[in-house]
Formats: sequence, structure tokens, C-alpha cells
Amino acid sequence: MADALPVWPGGVAALSAGDKAEVLVEALPYIRRFRGSTVVVKYGGNAMRGSDGLALFADDVVLLRAVGMNVVVVHGGGPQIGEMMTRLGKVPEFVDGLRVTDADTLEIARMVLVGKVNRDIVGAVNVAGAPAVGVSGEDAGLLQARARSVELGYVGDIDEVRPAILRRLLNEELVPVVATIGTDEEGQAYNINADTAAGAIAEALGAEKLVYLTDVEGLRRQPDDAASVLSTVSVDELDAMVDEGAVAGGMVPKATSCTKAVRAGVAHAHILDGRVPHVLLLEVFTRSGIGTMVAR
Amino acid sequence: MADALPVWPGGVAALSAGDKAEVLVEALPYIRRFRGSTVVVKYGGNAMRGSDGLALFADDVVLLRAVGMNVVVVHGGGPQIGEMMTRLGKVPEFVDGLRVTDADTLEIARMVLVGKVNRDIVGAVNVAGAPAVGVSGEDAGLLQARARSVELGYVGDIDEVRPAILRRLLNEELVPVVATIGTDEEGQAYNINADTAAGAIAEALGAEKLVYLTDVEGLRRQPDDAASVLSTVSVDELDAMVDEGAVAGGMVPKATSCTKAVRAGVAHAHILDGRVPHVLLLEVFTRSGIGTMVAR
Amino acid sequence: MADALPVWPGGVAALSAGDKAEVLVEALPYIRRFRGSTVVVKYGGNAMRGSDGLALFADDVVLLRAVGMNVVVVHGGGPQIGEMMTRLGKVPEFVDGLRVTDADTLEIARMVLVGKVNRDIVGAVNVAGAPAVGVSGEDAGLLQARARSVELGYVGDIDEVRPAILRRLLNEELVPVVATIGTDEEGQAYNINADTAAGAIAEALGAEKLVYLTDVEGLRRQPDDAASVLSTVSVDELDAMVDEGAVAGGMVPKATSCTKAVRAGVAHAHILDGRVPHVLLLEVFTRSGIGTMVAR
Amino acid sequence: MADALPVWPGGVAALSAGDKAEVLVEALPYIRRFRGSTVVVKYGGNAMRGSDGLALFADDVVLLRAVGMNVVVVHGGGPQIGEMMTRLGKVPEFVDGLRVTDADTLEIARMVLVGKVNRDIVGAVNVAGAPAVGVSGEDAGLLQARARSVELGYVGDIDEVRPAILRRLLNEELVPVVATIGTDEEGQAYNINADTAAGAIAEALGAEKLVYLTDVEGLRRQPDDAASVLSTVSVDELDAMVDEGAVAGGMVPKATSCTKAVRAGVAHAHILDGRVPHVLLLEVFTRSGIGTMVAR
Amino acid sequence: MADALPVWPGGVAALSAGDKAEVLVEALPYIRRFRGSTVVVKYGGNAMRGSDGLALFADDVVLLRAVGMNVVVVHGGGPQIGEMMTRLGKVPEFVDGLRVTDADTLEIARMVLVGKVNRDIVGAVNVAGAPAVGVSGEDAGLLQARARSVELGYVGDIDEVRPAILRRLLNEELVPVVATIGTDEEGQAYNINADTAAGAIAEALGAEKLVYLTDVEGLRRQPDDAASVLSTVSVDELDAMVDEGAVAGGMVPKATSCTKAVRAGVAHAHILDGRVPHVLLLEVFTRSGIGTMVAR
Amino acid sequence: MADALPVWPGGVAALSAGDKAEVLVEALPYIRRFRGSTVVVKYGGNAMRGSDGLALFADDVVLLRAVGMNVVVVHGGGPQIGEMMTRLGKVPEFVDGLRVTDADTLEIARMVLVGKVNRDIVGAVNVAGAPAVGVSGEDAGLLQARARSVELGYVGDIDEVRPAILRRLLNEELVPVVATIGTDEEGQAYNINADTAAGAIAEALGAEKLVYLTDVEGLRRQPDDAASVLSTVSVDELDAMVDEGAVAGGMVPKATSCTKAVRAGVAHAHILDGRVPHVLLLEVFTRSGIGTMVAR
Repeated sequence: MADALPVWPGGVAALSAGDKAEVLVEALPYIRRFRGSTVVVKYGGNAMRGSDGLALFADDVVLLRAVGMNVVVVHGGGPQIGEMMTRLGKVPEFVDGLRVTDADTLEIARMVLVGKVNRDIVGAVNVAGAPAVGVSGEDAGLLQARARSVELGYVGDIDEVRPAILRRLLNEELVPVVATIGTDEEGQAYNINADTAAGAIAEALGAEKLVYLTDVEGLRRQPDDAASVLSTVSVDELDAMVDEGAVAGGMVPKATSCTKAVRAGVAHAHILDGRVPHVLLLEVFTRSGIGTMVAR
Repeated sequence: MADALPVWPGGVAALSAGDKAEVLVEALPYIRRFRGSTVVVKYGGNAMRGSDGLALFADDVVLLRAVGMNVVVVHGGGPQIGEMMTRLGKVPEFVDGLRVTDADTLEIARMVLVGKVNRDIVGAVNVAGAPAVGVSGEDAGLLQARARSVELGYVGDIDEVRPAILRRLLNEELVPVVATIGTDEEGQAYNINADTAAGAIAEALGAEKLVYLTDVEGLRRQPDDAASVLSTVSVDELDAMVDEGAVAGGMVPKATSCTKAVRAGVAHAHILDGRVPHVLLLEVFTRSGIGTMVAR
Repeated sequence: MADALPVWPGGVAALSAGDKAEVLVEALPYIRRFRGSTVVVKYGGNAMRGSDGLALFADDVVLLRAVGMNVVVVHGGGPQIGEMMTRLGKVPEFVDGLRVTDADTLEIARMVLVGKVNRDIVGAVNVAGAPAVGVSGEDAGLLQARARSVELGYVGDIDEVRPAILRRLLNEELVPVVATIGTDEEGQAYNINADTAAGAIAEALGAEKLVYLTDVEGLRRQPDDAASVLSTVSVDELDAMVDEGAVAGGMVPKATSCTKAVRAGVAHAHILDGRVPHVLLLEVFTRSGIGTMVAR
Repeated sequence: MADALPVWPGGVAALSAGDKAEVLVEALPYIRRFRGSTVVVKYGGNAMRGSDGLALFADDVVLLRAVGMNVVVVHGGGPQIGEMMTRLGKVPEFVDGLRVTDADTLEIARMVLVGKVNRDIVGAVNVAGAPAVGVSGEDAGLLQARARSVELGYVGDIDEVRPAILRRLLNEELVPVVATIGTDEEGQAYNINADTAAGAIAEALGAEKLVYLTDVEGLRRQPDDAASVLSTVSVDELDAMVDEGAVAGGMVPKATSCTKAVRAGVAHAHILDGRVPHVLLLEVFTRSGIGTMVAR
Repeated sequence: MADALPVWPGGVAALSAGDKAEVLVEALPYIRRFRGSTVVVKYGGNAMRGSDGLALFADDVVLLRAVGMNVVVVHGGGPQIGEMMTRLGKVPEFVDGLRVTDADTLEIARMVLVGKVNRDIVGAVNVAGAPAVGVSGEDAGLLQARARSVELGYVGDIDEVRPAILRRLLNEELVPVVATIGTDEEGQAYNINADTAAGAIAEALGAEKLVYLTDVEGLRRQPDDAASVLSTVSVDELDAMVDEGAVAGGMVPKATSCTKAVRAGVAHAHILDGRVPHVLLLEVFTRSGIGTMVAR
Repeated sequence: MADALPVWPGGVAALSAGDKAEVLVEALPYIRRFRGSTVVVKYGGNAMRGSDGLALFADDVVLLRAVGMNVVVVHGGGPQIGEMMTRLGKVPEFVDGLRVTDADTLEIARMVLVGKVNRDIVGAVNVAGAPAVGVSGEDAGLLQARARSVELGYVGDIDEVRPAILRRLLNEELVPVVATIGTDEEGQAYNINADTAAGAIAEALGAEKLVYLTDVEGLRRQPDDAASVLSTVSVDELDAMVDEGAVAGGMVPKATSCTKAVRAGVAHAHILDGRVPHVLLLEVFTRSGIGTMVAR
């Protein structure tokens, strides 16, 4: 019996010693295989709205770090930005369905992303037991961006990822948590789509895995058919699905980032259901099929 | 003639080669002496309101870094928090002259400090040429805090500084920029006085220098007599001045942090006039007396 | 779903994703805590007679190594030596109930221990996936010994453990498997009790844990009462039990090695039932009480 | 006069100071040249039967190690295996003149090689003063093998040498002593010809020298003419001699290993007379021609 | 005000704080750019005859070292050799205008260069505050030479530069000061032209800069027109000027060494007026055009 | 037979293989023991006058270096300085039997020591095969000195040895050859007695051995009795001999340096006959008594 560590709340007691041993043994080859490799996890603004989910997610990050994986968390924060806009009485303006980001909106977005969402995630990972550091895409030139269009204001596209700052933090065994604000050479900030940024970062780091935590079970072959969730899909099939419109809405930047990253050398990309407790652990350390895996 | 670097705007041209050489030679013993040593600079929320001052300050930070010093920037942001409070229609409440920080106020304070003030400083240092990283006192347990009193809500006092995260970043030749939000063991955040935090961080790092950039010329022996600015003061004299009330208001936490840090091993503490361009460079690299130096 | 790794034979499939996640999460604090620490495991000659047990044991060693623990395996081989003696037609001779070890017996013992038992363990660990190296106590002066008595011949007691060779191998992330033959300064070999040697090695390495894998469930308070197995016992209590004769036979060197090692700084010693599959994993990574733990 | 070290038995006293100085000076360029380079020495089962020869050989190994060479000893043990077979009453069976190795014979061979011959060499080198470690070709996959033919049973040919384990031990300034048992991917052991294994190891390590210690003065041009010993031979000449049958019997695997290793980049291979005291030292550190050198 | 360092003699006091700050800020991009890069400075025997110049030069070397540049000083000593020759009553002999160097002259030259000129420079740099080490081109085979012609005796041309000794000293943060005596394989010494040696060393080290400190303002387009000093010149232009005779006398080896070194990868070569105080600092750390820069 | 290295001139051929082997084996324990330890050798100005002696000495230095010892050579040069003084027509002046060193004499002494004697030794060691570097006691503050008396001018006594420069050179596996010119804080040079300097350097480096190469067989108990050479002497006995006048003249600084160094932790000091070829090798690597050893 291992000695005095805080007792975990909950029901593992019901499992037999044999069951436990088998789970640990099942995890072994994955622990061995992924030591030292890098996983980039996009954690959604939606996913964290129930604080319980955030605590479970933080536990998973700490466990991955504990077995020697390099974990980078990337997040957005659309809902939280929207709330603050409302609170400040700002009325959103749209061009072609995309929200225009004027200077004031950008400042609010940055403040919420970096000062609230990022902080909440960093805090949760710290409390769970791994030293995390909040990073903005502005730090050390991480996300080099430029304006997407004049009409949209400070909405940026990524020109280049300079991952040196992430490597330095990973070298020091820290967990970088990235808020996706980018800058151009003059230091002008831009708001960047977090799904796209996660893919670009995974690519720049040569990550082993790129994981999207969403609020659906995975990619569906038929958008309306919950039973059509795919367990694996090739990059070519996925491209075709995007072209055909079978993938739509907010899933599009995730899907295209997956295919782009996998084509650029990321071994696997995954679209998982962030509502399943410890889904990240289950994906990495068990044989069970969870969500959708994108592979070459 | 050194080759194609971007030309600096301005008037050095009027100086003779001999003048320039003498300035460089004057700086030499200080460059040699301070290589590898650490300086903690408290940069005030007031100081940065004119953006020009921020750019000059960032240049100084980069130059200190370039000659091998470890620079840690600590900042507050009272004025910026006040603006956002006003904008959100929050009415401040006071107990014994101190603002009560309820949960909502704390969240706004954190958002502004981490998401705006910190970002602006990090951005300026990055543009000036050194890789800076925004750090909150919450990261990796940097600032361990507890509530000062029940009435004041989430206003915290520092229990302990855990400087490991700063050392790791300095090891990687990064410039940490610290927003002074602390946490307790449960992860509850608190707003911390930035002057006090700067002193505690300098002490924990065994810094060579602790520098406060303010908007006065230095400490005055007579509060009302601008001509009574002291160029040096001992820790005992300064303690006496605080006891006698010769030091008052916002200068008190600076003064007591200076004496505490110097007694704990920081070689020198300085209260400088942040409105003087490049005052940090002048203090570190020239013989001229600038502001007030606190020494044993 | 993690991709193409060889499928594990067996029944984990019956466990739900939630069950699996909870086991992994339960293991997390122990993984974090034991990284980089050392465990010395005495693996008995009896335990390995069914080859299945050896394979399961090797899996456990590899998993401990995979999460960053330093594992040293120490083994004896009494039954195997006896078999070879019989096969060679040697008739054992006894003095006070202890087998006399003449030069020929020593050579047979060494040959069997180093050339057969040690090899079988090394091979099993290698096949399970960690690079293991067979070490004799003769290598690089690991076990310095002298004759226990003239009558017993080449039966040795340990004078000193020189653990440098083990540290070198652990530095290189190898798993040392130690056959307990010692030598004196002239190079004369002696057969050493493996239980005692395991304790002395744990002490010399400053190990975190010393584990005996036996064929009983643990230490019993009443030798005849299988229901009296102790889950924890202090070193003082255990000493008393040895004095009173409540611990007897082959359990005595285990018990006295446990108390000696724990008093010398080994954090915990454990007497486990090697017949339980993956008992080593269960002890290290779960909260469940298994076998008997000896602590200060 | 150097101070209190144990006095060497014997007759160097008769040499003058000038003689001694000249020997040391003669050795100088070789010491300088071979520092940090690797020598693989095949030490024969025959060579070690008089224990005096083993002690002298161990001294040589220690001296090579002392001047900074990496020494790997490879050994067989045919005569010792034969003795144990006889003692156990096993009757050898032959196919085409080669001994069939059934499972029981393999186990005996392994036990004798690893548990006796290897141990005796390791012990002698340890006593002479360098930390030696016994290694089996099974350790960490060193010798990957497969069955030569179904009829011969567990006689293996080398598929691949994985020298990482040897490099790790050499890094730690240890002397690996290798017993030539190999394994296939399933962990099945095979008995490997030690002459062939020595050559393959030298090749895999990129050794500077491969040395065979035998009980003849060197290679003879005419098998029956003791006066026809060659002092140097090229790989082409040696291949021709094997083809013509001028090299025969147990010398064939040595000769073909020499030519194979030299062609693969080993600088020189040597066939020396292990009966000459300190022949290894004389070969490495003097200009005198000793035995036969194989070069491109 | 920085604390108790010895007060500098002189007149910087007249400069305003703003002036000083601007000079420091002007230097910043160059400090950043040249950290870790190598500069080879040829310091002339003429330049050091007023000891004041030597002290100023030494200050410059120390400052370059303090900001992290690798500085190598190369010097000749014609005038000092001539003085000693006269003092010893030696009558110089000439062939085609070049002084014949017999064995006695060589010994005198070496003694003066290594034992006097080199020592004076090393001493001055040491006093100024950086650890300098005197090196002869004979040390560790630095300058491999052969006789230029039989008639000239021990005047040597460089065959090869072996810069390992300089790299080792630079690794240890020492300032090598090189006297340009070379040797051939037999150890025979030769006197080498210091201008040529400086260029060859810069090339061998892959230096960033090669600087000649002379007693003219720079290269003139018209030899007789002091107003025709060039601020930059390309290697092709400079070659043409040498061919046309516009560059003549002692300036020829400097000019040809500049073009050769720049063509071989040295980024810039400079011919400066060593009589200007701190000219080296001004060249490296200011934008002002000083002397002549040779670039591709 | 080892391959194509240049053949040594001379008569080792007459020795049998057995003789050679025994000499090598005799050297083994000393090679092992002295690896990584430091020996400071004072090489006298007299000793090097026949160039043959210098070449043999250089061979010995290279061999010590080759087996991993750190060798520091310290030298004087009285005879060579005297010759140059004569050649320059300087008439020596004496006070109490000691030569007065005026500024001109100091410059000549320095020039001869650093520019000639030091160079000759560095050159010889380089040719023999180890990279040597000439060092003056002025380099990096190695020998801190002050004037012994006003009358004697620039004759200095050692105040402090700062051995950092020697450690840096030894770290880089170079052989420092030290000319014993010291300096005071102002950079004023002084001529230092080389015997005394050698002892002080050995002490500062914590050397294992301090060796004086002289032109006598060793210390005599009776100055006039060549048969009274001592093979060992304790520091107390030697002090008494100096007090009684049994040790006199130039042997006094050697004797007092030996006792001082041994009392300060140098293991052994030796006074050897530099006229015996390879006496240094014989002392270090053989059991034969050579010269006089000073021990506690």
C-alpha cells in the first residue's frame, strides 16, 4: 500500500486489483512510446464553461507531463469575449458573417483571452500539479500575423510560427498555455482563430499529436446522423468531406488544420468529445477507439 | 563605420567622437561588474501612460539584457483597472481608505493587469528586441498569498515567493514581465500590491538591484521641498523617515520594500524618476547621481 | 484511438472508459512522486518457477522503468542450485542445518545463479522491452564479502556494498539484475544470501523502496493464522516479532533486512505476494493495501 | 623514487635505468596514438586453462584501460562446456562434424559460459584493478541471432550486432567481458561462435584493433612449417589462403573474421600467441613484430 | 548613482544625461549584434610607442571583451627590433630592399617581439581588466611557415594557420595576444609579417571583423591627397588600387590581407587611425564613419 | 607489430620482449595512480644548455601528458640573462652579493626569459608532440609580487599566486611553460626566483608532485661527500639541514620550497639529476630510487 497521499474522491474501489493491473499494463506501451514526444491540445472556450470539466482536463495534462510528454495547450475564448462585449455595451458589427474587430474590440478580446481564459487554464493546471505558464502569441514573436482584410479590422491570419519560446519552456518542463493573439512586425496585435493556430503550432513543433477537444462525439459522415461518427478518416477523405460540405461551420477550421498538420508531418490528429471525462487520457493511453482520428 | 543598421532618429550626431568614446568608456566598468547579475524593476502603471515612455523603457531593458544582465520587470496597473471599473459601471467601495476587492473586481483587475498592462509591456520589449514573456504571479506558484482581511476581500499579502519559474525563464535568456496576482494553495487568486511584490521578488532572487520607476525625482527629506531630494539614504535613515511620516502615501510601500530587500541581501535599491528618458541606463551605466539610492 | 500497437491478450475490454480513466488518474500522483527514485526488488527463485509469473514480473519492471523509476532486481536461486546438484550427483552436507559450500558447490552455485537464473530474468526483461544487464556481485567489487565460518566453506557475509557499478548502469537507463555472489579482496567468491544482499543494496543506494516478492500474502501476526496478515508494521514491532519467534524460517532474513534498511534511510520496505499478477504495479501505483509495508 | 606501492615480484631489477627509460619512450607514440580508440580482444577458452595466463592477460587489459583505450573482451568456452557435458553424462551428437545443440545442451553451454568462464575473466580483471562487467550477447539485444539450420538446433548465426550496451559501458569506463550467447526477437537463445562474434563486434564498434589470442605463434604460410609464420598479410592474400586451404580448422573463422572486419573499417586485425606473457602489451606498445597482422 | 567605483579622470561630466543616454542607446544594436563574434586587431609597433595610446587601446579591448566579443590581438614590432639591433651593434644587411634575417637576427627579433612588445601589450590589457595571454605563432603550431627565399634567411611565409590554440583560449574567455613568429615542421622559427599574419588568422577563425590600427586616417584614393580618404571600398576596387600603385609601401600587405580575408568570409575589414583615442570602440559601437571599411 | 610510426634511434632492440613487458607492467600502477594529478617541474637554465637534454626532457613531458597527467613547467634563465647582459656591455652591480636589477636589467631579463628561454622550451615540447603554451607570471595576474628591497630594484617576492590561468590551460590539455616574471597591482614587473615560484605554484595548484631538475645527483647529507646522497628526507630533517648549513647556495631556495610545498599539501617533492636521460620518467614510472624525495 502506498502511503499518505490525499485520497481521491470516488469509485475506483469497486474495481478489482486485477482490473487495475490490466489497465496499467494496457497503458504501458503507450507510455513508453510517447515519452518525449509533443502533443498540442486545442481546448475550447465552450469546453471550459463547466469548471468541473476544466479540473478534469488539467488532471489529464498533468498526467501526460508526468510520463514525460511535452504538452502545449492552445485555447480560444469566443463565448467569454462575447460576454464582456455585452457587459460593456458594445454592439457587434458583421461583414460577411464575420465579426469586425476594431481597436477597442481587439483590446477587450485580448484582455479576456489573456487575462481571464488563459489565467483560468493556467491556474487549473497549476493546482493539478504541473507548473504551467501563460503565453500569448505575441510573446517572443510566437505568432506572426497580418490583417486578413481591411473590413475585418484586427482579425489576423498567421504568416509564420516561431516556436522557439515554446521549446524553451518545454525544455524547462513547463506547460505552455497559449492565447492566440498574434502580432505583425510593428507590434500591432491581431486576434487569431484558435483552431488554426493550434494546427500551425503543432506543425511548427513537429508534434506527434494534434488534439481538438470539442463538444461533439467526433466527425460525422452525415452531419445529421449522430450514428455516423467516424473513428478514423484519411486526410484525402477529410478534404473531400470539407469540399462536399459534409463538414461545416466551426468544424471546418478544425478539419482543415488537421489535414494540413498531418500532411506536414504531425503523426495523428484527433477530434475528441471534451465532455467525456478524461477523454485525453483515454485517447493517449488506451486501445479503445475514441472520437475521430485523422491519419495519412 | 558600422554597416547597414537602421538609423536611429535623433541628435547624437552633434556629439563628437571623443564625447562618444568617453561615454562608452565610462560605462565599461559597470558593464563588466553587472554581467550576470539580476535587476528587478518595478514599472509603474502611471509611468506607462504616455506610450513614448514605454518605448524608451523597453529600449533600456533590452540594453541591460544585451550586456548580460538578468532583468525582471514587475508592474501594477491601478489607473488602468480604475478606468475599466468605470467603464463597466462598478462603484468602488472602501474600508479604512482601502478599496474592497470583491470577486467581480478581482476578475476585472486580473483581466486588465494580465490581459492589457502586462501585454503592452511584453509587446514593447519584444518590439525593442528582447524576447519577453508575460508571467502572472499565479504561474507555477510564483506569488503565494493569503487574504489581508475579510473586509477587503481578495486583496492579498505575500506569504512566500517561489522564484523557480523566473530562474527558468532567465536561464533561457528571456525577460519575465510579472503581473502581481497571487494565489493561495487552493488556487484562489488575490490582487497584490506591486511595490511590495517587486521587493519580495528581488529578495527571493538575491538580486543585485531593486529599482522603482516613479513619477518623482526621488525621495525627499522634506516632503514639501523639491530641493531636498536625497541622493543616498541608509536603511536605518529611511526607516526613521517612514516612522516620522517624512515618507508618506504611495511612497511608503516602496520605501519599506527597499529597506527590507537591502537588509535581506539585495545590494542596492533605487527610487528613480521614470519620466527622465533612459533613466535606467543612466543609473546603471554612469557615475552621475540619479534619484535616490538606498544602501546598508 | 491509439494506432497499431500489438493487441494485449485479455479482458480489459470489459472495463468501461470511465473505469480505465479512474485507474490512470489514481496512478498519477504515484507516477509523479516516484519519478527518479530507486526501487530494489528481491525476486525469489521460487517465484519464477512458473514462467508465466516471470513474464508478468518483467512487464512490471518495464513499466516502472518507463515512468522514470530506477529499478534494481536482486535474485537468489536455491531451488535451481539444488536441482543441478542433484543432477551432478552431489550429496549435500549440513552443519547446524546450513548447507556446507565447498569449492565445487560454490562453482555450481555460481554457474547456476549467474549462468541460468540471472540469464532467464535478464532475458525476460529484455523481451518485455527494457534493456537489462546481468550483474554479479563480483563485478566491480559490488558485494565485498568474507567467510561466515570455516565450517560452512564459501558461504559469505557482506562486509561492504560498493554501489558505483549499479549507479553507472542506472545512469545509462539500464536495469541491473544482480546475482548475489560476492568476493573478498583476493577475488575469492562466496555465495551470499539474496534477501540480505537486497537489503544491503537498497541501503547503499539510498533506495526509496525495498520490495520482497514471496509466495505468501504478507507477514502474519500469528504464523498459523492466514487471517492475521499485517498491512503495515513498524520497524520496532517487526523486531519484536522476530525476537518472539512470530517471524521464523526464511522470513527472518527478509524481516531483519527490512528493519535494517528502513532504519538506514530506505523510506519503505514491502513484503508482497509474488503470486498475485502485477503485484508490483499494484503496490506502487494504487492506493489499495497489498501485502505488508514496513515503515519507521 | 615513487612511494609505497606493492612491490612487483620479479626480475626487472636487472634492467638498467637507461633500458627502462627507453622502453617507456618507445611506448610513448603508441600511447598517444591509441588513446580513446577501441580494441576488441578474443580470449580463447584454451588460453585461460592455466590460471597464470589469465592473470597476466588481466594485467594487460588493465594497462590498456589505464592509458585510455576502450577494451572489450570476447570469449568462448568450448573445453569448459565439454567438461560439464561429460560430468553430466551427456553424449554429444554430431551432424556433418558439428555438434548438435539441443535445448538441454544450450542451457548447459550458457550456464558454463556466462556462469563460469565469463565470471573467471571478470574476476581476474577486477582483481588486476579495472572495473569489469560481465555481459551476455543476450543483454539489451547485443547479439541478434537466428538458427543456422534445423539439424544443428540452437547453434546461431549473427544477424545484427546492437552495440549500444557496449558503448554505454565503455562510456562509464568499464571493461565489458562478452559471453557469446545470442537471441532472436522472441528471446530464444543460441550459442554463437566466439571468433565470429568478436569480429562482428569489432566491426559494429568501429574498433581500431581486433585481436585473437591463440595458442599458435601466428598464421603460417605453410600449415606444416613452423618457420613460415607471417608477420603481415593483406586481406586479399589471406582470403586466397583460406580458399586454397592453407588456413584450416579453427583458424578459418578467425581468418575470415579478420578480413571481414578490416574490410569494414577496423584498422588492423592481429592473430597473436596468447602463451607469450603480456603479448597484448607488446603488440600494442612496442615496435617488435609479434604474431601476424592483417591489414588492407 | 552607481556606487563606489574608482572615478574616471576627465571630462565626461560636461555631457548631459540625455547625451550619455543617447550614446548608450546608439551602441545597443551593435552590442547585440556582435556578441559572440570574433574581431582580430592588428596593433602596430608604431602605434604603441606613446604608452598612453597603449592604455587607451587596452581599455577598448577590455570593453569589447566585456560585451561578449572574442578579441584576438596581433602585433609586430619592427621599430623595437631595430632599436635592439642597434644597441647590440648589428649592421642590417639588405637584399632587394628587404632585411636579411640571419640566425642571430632571428633570435633577437623573437626575443624582442615575444619578450618585450608582446609582454607590454599583455600587461596593459591585464591592467585594464581582462585576462590576456601572450601567444607566439610557435605555440601549438599556430603559424606554420616556410622560408620565403634562401637569401632572406629566416623570413617566413605562412603555409597554414592552426587556430585551435586560439579557440581554446577564447573558450576560456582569455584575450590572446599573438607575436608573429612561425615555425616549420622541424621547429625552425621564422619571422612573419604581422599584417599578413593578422589577415590569415582572421580568415582561419572565421572572424566577423579584421581591424588594422595604423598611423594614417585611412586609405586614400590619391596617395598624396589627405582629403581623398575613402570611407568604404570594395575588394575589387581595392585590388585595382594596389595594381595601379595607388596603394603602396607598408599599406600593401594590409590592403591585400583585407581583400583576401573578406573574400574568404570575414565580414568586414577596417583600416583605422590608431592615433584617435578609442578608435576601436568608435568603429564597433557607433554609426559614425571612421577610417576605411573594406567590404565585398 | 604496430604499424608505420617513425623508428626510434637506438638500442632498445637489445632488450627481450620479456624485458620490455616487465618494464611496461612495472609502470602500470603509477600510470593508474597519477592520471589526472598535477606535477610541477622546475627546469633549470643550466639544464638546457646542451640542446640534447632539452629534447629528452620534452619527450618526458609529452609522455606524462599522454598518460593523463597535468604538467606545468617552470623555468629560470640566469645564465642566458648573464650572456645578454655581457653582450650589451652592462656591468652587473651587487648589494650583499645579490645582483641589483634596474629598469634596463629587468627589461633585458624579461626579454631573455620570455622571448628566448621560454620559447626554446615551448618549441621543444611542441616538436615532441604536446601543445605547449608560453606563460609569463604577468599573465592574468599569475604571480603577484612586490619589491624585496629598495636597493635590489626590480627583484620581487611572491605575494600571491593566482592559478586560474594555469587551470584554464590544463583544462584545455595544454602544457603551460611559465617564465617567472611577476607584477604588482600597478602592472610593474619584477624578476622572481624560479625555484621559489615553482614551489608556490605547486602549492597553489595542489599538485601531487614538485620536481626540481638540477645538475647534482640529489641532496647530500655531507656537502662534500658525493656518497652521502639521500634517497628520502623528511621535511623536518631538511629544515634542520638548512639551519645547520648542510644545504647551501642555490640549493637553499629549492630545499625551503620543497618543505614549504609539502607542508602545504603537495604529496612529494623531488630533487633530481637533470643530466640523467629521462630522469623524470624514471622517477614517475619506476620503483627505482632516483635522486632525493622530500616527504612529510
